[in-house]
Amino acid sequence: MNKPAKQQQGQNNKKKPRTAITPTREEDFAEWYQQVVKSADFAENSPTRGCMIIKPYGWAIWEKCQEIFDKWLKDYGVENASFPLLIPMSFFSREAEHVEGFAKECAVVTHHRLESDGKGGLQPAEDAKLEEPYVVRPTSETIIGDAMSRWIQSYRDLPMQLNQWAQVLRWEMRTRLFLRTAEFFWHEGHNAFEDHKGADDDCLHVMGLYEKFFTEHLAFDGFVGVKTPEETFPGANRTYAFEAMMQDGKALQAATTHDLGTTFAKTFNITYQGRDEKEHLCHTTSWAFSTRTIGGLIMMHADDDGMIMPPRIAPQQIIILPIVKEDTAEAVQAFCAKLTKDLKAKGFRVKFDNRDMRTPDKMWDAVKKGVPIRVEIGAREMEEGQLTYVRRDIGRESKTTLAVEEFVDKAEGILDDIHDTMLARTRKFRDENTHDVTSIDEIEAFFKAEKIGFLRAPVAILEDDKLEAVMKEYSLSTRNMPNADKGEKVLIAKAY
Amino acid sequence: MNKPAKQQQGQNNKKKPRTAITPTREEDFAEWYQQVVKSADFAENSPTRGCMIIKPYGWAIWEKCQEIFDKWLKDYGVENASFPLLIPMSFFSREAEHVEGFAKECAVVTHHRLESDGKGGLQPAEDAKLEEPYVVRPTSETIIGDAMSRWIQSYRDLPMQLNQWAQVLRWEMRTRLFLRTAEFFWHEGHNAFEDHKGADDDCLHVMGLYEKFFTEHLAFDGFVGVKTPEETFPGANRTYAFEAMMQDGKALQAATTHDLGTTFAKTFNITYQGRDEKEHLCHTTSWAFSTRTIGGLIMMHADDDGMIMPPRIAPQQIIILPIVKEDTAEAVQAFCAKLTKDLKAKGFRVKFDNRDMRTPDKMWDAVKKGVPIRVEIGAREMEEGQLTYVRRDIGRESKTTLAVEEFVDKAEGILDDIHDTMLARTRKFRDENTHDVTSIDEIEAFFKAEKIGFLRAPVAILEDDKLEAVMKEYSLSTRNMPNADKGEKVLIAKAY
Repeated sequence: MNKPAKQQQGQNNKKKPRTAITPTREEDFAEWYQQVVKSADFAENSPTRGCMIIKPYGWAIWEKCQEIFDKWLKDYGVENASFPLLIPMSFFSREAEHVEGFAKECAVVTHHRLESDGKGGLQPAEDAKLEEPYVVRPTSETIIGDAMSRWIQSYRDLPMQLNQWAQVLRWEMRTRLFLRTAEFFWHEGHNAFEDHKGADDDCLHVMGLYEKFFTEHLAFDGFVGVKTPEETFPGANRTYAFEAMMQDGKALQAATTHDLGTTFAKTFNITYQGRDEKEHLCHTTSWAFSTRTIGGLIMMHADDDGMIMPPRIAPQQIIILPIVKEDTAEAVQAFCAKLTKDLKAKGFRVKFDNRDMRTPDKMWDAVKKGVPIRVEIGAREMEEGQLTYVRRDIGRESKTTLAVEEFVDKAEGILDDIHDTMLARTRKFRDENTHDVTSIDEIEAFFKAEKIGFLRAPVAILEDDKLEAVMKEYSLSTRNMPNADKGEKVLIAKAY
Repeated sequence: MNKPAKQQQGQNNKKKPRTAITPTREEDFAEWYQQVVKSADFAENSPTRGCMIIKPYGWAIWEKCQEIFDKWLKDYGVENASFPLLIPMSFFSREAEHVEGFAKECAVVTHHRLESDGKGGLQPAEDAKLEEPYVVRPTSETIIGDAMSRWIQSYRDLPMQLNQWAQVLRWEMRTRLFLRTAEFFWHEGHNAFEDHKGADDDCLHVMGLYEKFFTEHLAFDGFVGVKTPEETFPGANRTYAFEAMMQDGKALQAATTHDLGTTFAKTFNITYQGRDEKEHLCHTTSWAFSTRTIGGLIMMHADDDGMIMPPRIAPQQIIILPIVKEDTAEAVQAFCAKLTKDLKAKGFRVKFDNRDMRTPDKMWDAVKKGVPIRVEIGAREMEEGQLTYVRRDIGRESKTTLAVEEFVDKAEGILDDIHDTMLARTRKFRDENTHDVTSIDEIEAFFKAEKIGFLRAPVAILEDDKLEAVMKEYSLSTRNMPNADKGEKVLIAKAY
């Protein structure tokens, strides 16, 4: 277990301000990230190469995302279904452009039985070799397209709006918890429409839902726009992406919607009889956000003391710590238990941390996990019917003592204010670190000087031959052409 | 699409009573089952061998199961997490008994990249062969046991109660939608305790939750008991199972809880420092129910007109069909839309079937999908502020006309009564088809005469050498030793 900041810092460097996470963001952002994940108990590496174990506190965030967003999708008319995990290899050969982009690095199933290797171990049984290998899905356009070709007959069957919450697997060479793992979780929407307008409207509508979800629940904003052709999804006509800025100035693609045109409809024969009684190709879309978002949440919000959870997605919104001494322990615990019950009755997610541990350890645990409001109650507070709370987004300066009833009444407002403060902070950071440029020299100078952030350039710059070399030199990529700029600008940045 | 009974029967046999499903249960139970699945639009076979596509109406049942049961598990103290889909092959070699029972027929991942085969197709890339193959999890005792060995240090970390909602994959040779598929969905609980009592209490408590869930939500009861040694989970000390009786008299094992003793703790080194400051092995458990349950629901409740959904799990509890004529269509539709809204506001799951189809087709669709209450409203009903409803569990004889407000008030009671009626019906069937026997001759005579049901024999019969031959001859198995009989009896039956 991580030690509280005091001890850690004592061992390391007496002059530095005390932080619960070592190293700090400034010292080593990548390592700081790993330490935040670890100290918040979100996830860990597993014995399976490149795959993570998402621990209960981390998984609860994903469950909360699912709970909220799934309802929105259903309200929009989307129906959930479940398609096979394994996809026949030949399905990937069928869509040439798609396979180029996707099917290369993936888990290939070649045998269907194990046998003893005669040395106490196991081996794939030679007589159980599959005639056609299967691929653990890296994404499901192909197998869902194949199903749609059977399910769609007439314009009456359209739009067909399907979604599944599932894991996918892409064999990644360099992995990082949440940000890039072989197995990750997402929802994948696959919709079919009569025409281009239906498909494009769908892409924009769902992107609007993502934007609403990210701002209203995850407290972060980003740039919504169209991907450049090089960054477009393999097989798609157009990809819309939500690009968020992390605290190191790099971009994280947090969600995408793809207008697949008739590419997959042609390959998988997804046709319908139109109102004109003629056969037409469907226009299909696909869209997703994934557990990468949790990595984004961390790099967007966490500080040198660990995670700061946006309240609306936080598995625990309020944590209650009893400050116990032997003679008053029972009474304080009962007082805390009652408060927990009252807050739960009002719908808050509350944890009463009554573990048999030192109070400072519990306090730091709550800090590192990023619980939005930490409540502390000792014998004196109890006698006066009061409590003390600290906001995680502000820290000690927010320490406030209130009558218990007043806190119960005000808690929702405090959580809303934490959300608003966090959102405003990330927006401010994004705006301060997004710069307009007009030349490739400016781009080069910016990144040469090790400045951080996004550069916004006129789209014409994409046609300049010199751009590629600079992009390569500084590991840059085009993020998207923001809708807000009417597609006249392109964002250039380093990215996860 | 299936045609309504009238047309079908007209083509086949004029003397038979009209049924929406052909064949009937009596004619061919196995084929009847497939036709119910198909006509209710639950699921279909996929291009992936042995794997199914669960369609929206079928998936909604599983989502409802998850929603209800997940809350119960959390109330009990279980935390959800997520463990890798792929498990290193060597993990299965470690627990000898477990591998014997499990790891043989499974999907083996041997390569991590595809490459062009030079003929327009793809092939696994030889230079991307894995040093150690992975197995798509058939169950997760091994990888979760390995994690527990890292996570558990002291008795303070116990009990550790983990669960995941996930799919597993077992390479089945003969598959049947829901009942036996290569990929299926389940939740798998994995808990660790200080001692045997903790583990056994856990098995009994969770089995109690299953029993409550099956009776109170799925409207079916079964026999809860301990498996005989031959039927015990590979590696477990004791397996409790819930055995339900299908309409053909066969048993379906609907849920199990396993007391794994210290088997996995030994293999994966799951130890804790006890209150005595010494190192001890944990006692672990695992338990599950799966999408097989949906197959059970069908074979338990459906009739020759298709599915009958238990109301508390039904994706649609009430379906509203407008009976429209040209001049009154708009008014009737508005009337139905308002009723839909009022019912939804009261928390019912309601579908207003306003599709552009013939009313009898819609009516039969609702029958085959098993929607518990079908409401029909035409111009006359509308004018009189009334509606007509039919209960799916009873059929036409239940046809009732009520004032709309009265229906809204009574709907909950009607749904409860449907549930109670369905539960009583399945209990009656189970009791009528469970017979006490004392000799092997009686067992043989019963199945030789092609009678259906469960036989309950004294456990001493298990020691009779002649039992095995009879069991083999009639494809029988011991189901469990019911707790209600204090373990003195054993159930013998055919089984899925």
